Amino acid sequence: MKIIRGGITAPHGFEASGISCGIKKGNALDLALIYSQQPALAVGLFTSSHFPANHVVLDRTRLNRYGRAQAIIVNSGNANCAVGEKGLSDAERVTDKVAKVLGINSFLVLMASTGIIGKRLPVEKIERAIPLLINTKRKDRYRLASRAIMTTDKKPKDIALELKIKGKKIRIGAMAKGAGMINPRLATMLCFITTDLSINSKLLKKALKEAVDNSFNRISIDGEMSTNDSVIIMANGLAGNRRIDNLEESDFLVFSEGLRFGCEYLARQIVLDGEGATKFISIKVKGAKNRFEAERVSRTIANSPLFKTAMYGQNPNWGRIISACGASEARLNPEKLDISLGGQFVFRCGKPVGKDFQHFKKILEKREIKVEIDLNLGKGEYSLWTIDLSEDYVRINAGYE
Amino acid sequence: MKIIRGGITAPHGFEASGISCGIKKGNALDLALIYSQQPALAVGLFTSSHFPANHVVLDRTRLNRYGRAQAIIVNSGNANCAVGEKGLSDAERVTDKVAKVLGINSFLVLMASTGIIGKRLPVEKIERAIPLLINTKRKDRYRLASRAIMTTDKKPKDIALELKIKGKKIRIGAMAKGAGMINPRLATMLCFITTDLSINSKLLKKALKEAVDNSFNRISIDGEMSTNDSVIIMANGLAGNRRIDNLEESDFLVFSEGLRFGCEYLARQIVLDGEGATKFISIKVKGAKNRFEAERVSRTIANSPLFKTAMYGQNPNWGRIISACGASEARLNPEKLDISLGGQFVFRCGKPVGKDFQHFKKILEKREIKVEIDLNLGKGEYSLWTIDLSEDYVRINAGYE
Repeated sequence: MKIIRGGITAPHGFEASGISCGIKKGNALDLALIYSQQPALAVGLFTSSHFPANHVVLDRTRLNRYGRAQAIIVNSGNANCAVGEKGLSDAERVTDKVAKVLGINSFLVLMASTGIIGKRLPVEKIERAIPLLINTKRKDRYRLASRAIMTTDKKPKDIALELKIKGKKIRIGAMAKGAGMINPRLATMLCFITTDLSINSKLLKKALKEAVDNSFNRISIDGEMSTNDSVIIMANGLAGNRRIDNLEESDFLVFSEGLRFGCEYLARQIVLDGEGATKFISIKVKGAKNRFEAERVSRTIANSPLFKTAMYGQNPNWGRIISACGASEARLNPEKLDISLGGQFVFRCGKPVGKDFQHFKKILEKREIKVEIDLNLGKGEYSLWTIDLSEDYVRINAGYE
Repeated sequence: MKIIRGGITAPHGFEASGISCGIKKGNALDLALIYSQQPALAVGLFTSSHFPANHVVLDRTRLNRYGRAQAIIVNSGNANCAVGEKGLSDAERVTDKVAKVLGINSFLVLMASTGIIGKRLPVEKIERAIPLLINTKRKDRYRLASRAIMTTDKKPKDIALELKIKGKKIRIGAMAKGAGMINPRLATMLCFITTDLSINSKLLKKALKEAVDNSFNRISIDGEMSTNDSVIIMANGLAGNRRIDNLEESDFLVFSEGLRFGCEYLARQIVLDGEGATKFISIKVKGAKNRFEAERVSRTIANSPLFKTAMYGQNPNWGRIISACGASEARLNPEKLDISLGGQFVFRCGKPVGKDFQHFKKILEKREIKVEIDLNLGKGEYSLWTIDLSEDYVRINAGYE
């Protein structure tokens, strides 16, 4: 596996573009296209919110029915969510227009939106811009696309990989946006992945699900789940490999690992670019009764404002970790608990190690902080990544409209 | 029912004191005593954290075993939590000393602590200060006590009420501390209540539980649950009423309502004094499938940093309320949802009411904000109080040691 240039368009047969259509102010890029020269197998994972955005409803229906896609149009600046029954027909109008200009079937066009909730999508603006969006699609425009899907992100996020599968070189390209509302079970957070691999749809879905479970589902910026979270992968088969049809094939493993690497890379970029982040914090919980309880403990810590503000203040107040452990509802025995910060025990076998808080201050001066908790009760493990809570987070979100 | 002067010592036979024993810096008050001239019936409700502080363990044991108390000693500045097995004997040493100086049995002395987690309690300092603490107890020193239990609170919080029961005047006095780590199921948050009512222990517990469920359990500052949360009531019977023994007696209702009023008043004070608060927000959810789901929706909103920062920024971005509703895992039908801010619909029957965000800006300029959500699915209702999330919250908690 090697990292190559090219982002979302690195795999054969994919092109992209990104333009401004006037949703955002000041000519900022706000409309992106991902296009495959031929219809690709497509799989999507979406928010589990009970109030999903309209694009989620549209994409789910099309993917369940057809399982293929040739183009994805993405707008930023407007979430097309909670606008009443018009929201779905607005999304349909946009994808119809894309299909018409490309000369393909509407059901091969997917859509994604991110931005403010509750405002109608400016469909006319988007429709007017679609011919330009399509005419400007090119192999080398992946960066325009990854810029056009940004909201409060400070940087575009993309990656491309090359793998060897059945003697052929195959490629994976991906781009994502993150920043706010990042938490469990997909977070707004959009991620688009392309590959020229030939693989059957069941295995593509399995690989995507595993990759997402081990990457995007393991990050938490602020405990929020969005109405718009979406991860979509397109596989157009143009690499020319013999199709992967068997779970046991080592080639499936190679692809799965590549996909997971790409998703982990982007998940990390999203955390590093989290709203107001000054720290990258990895939390690992082990020794829980089971995986589920380990996850609860790690999420309770990751979403604790008291823990997060302590990290921001470089304040080694590990009492707040204890407090979150106790509040998590996971079974624990206070006398068995171990906690370490940056590889150094601060609490062991239910007791402080006897050093002053000041002693641990150095650990928290670093940009990356490792928190490890061992409940010493069982084999349940879970880990996730999060950030601190800074005044900037408040400033960004108090003002965002 | 009328509000009277006197706080925790308003009921007959109670005295209090508050002094500095040197846990906090700069001679700040950090040690309080509540004393009843004769042993009182006592009932406590404590944190459901799996990692409770040592005072919680001590008090639970004594209250379960004896159900009576004559004195409560409270320190601030140190939580006596997560310090290993010495923590419990430290608490016992303190209560033993109080018992000895008062000349009463140790099991009649309870203790509560609040402050930093993970540091040994400075027992010698406290022991040295106990004679002075006890010698200075007086009827008019309730305010010193309510000051001595404060941590990041800006104001002491107390109340006293007079009720008429069976022709006798009976009194309820109470004091509380709050500020940070305030959430479900008791929050640090200490509250002490006294009454001179004569009542049996089962009914006292019932009245306390109901009052707490409808007050302290309905406030959320930051979604945190503390290791130290405690509410303790002492009833010494000195009002001389015939003992309340029957649930059906109207007098029980009068007492219950008084207790609830007092707890609600203090809960409100705690919210108003929440860390960094600039807004007092009441969230009411109705029309849920059941009460449990209504509670989930209201807590998800109350603990959403995106909602809270929007309130701080006076930004009527109701999309964040929708997003929290969707994330709450309660059943909902997007087409039936109603949302109002300050009594004005912003979203009705699944649609925005069609007014610009700016239109609602005025509502958010007020200090008190009412959010009402109707899921229009069933009869489940729940309401709670919370605050916004400001830069000051981050500043206070990044620095607190």
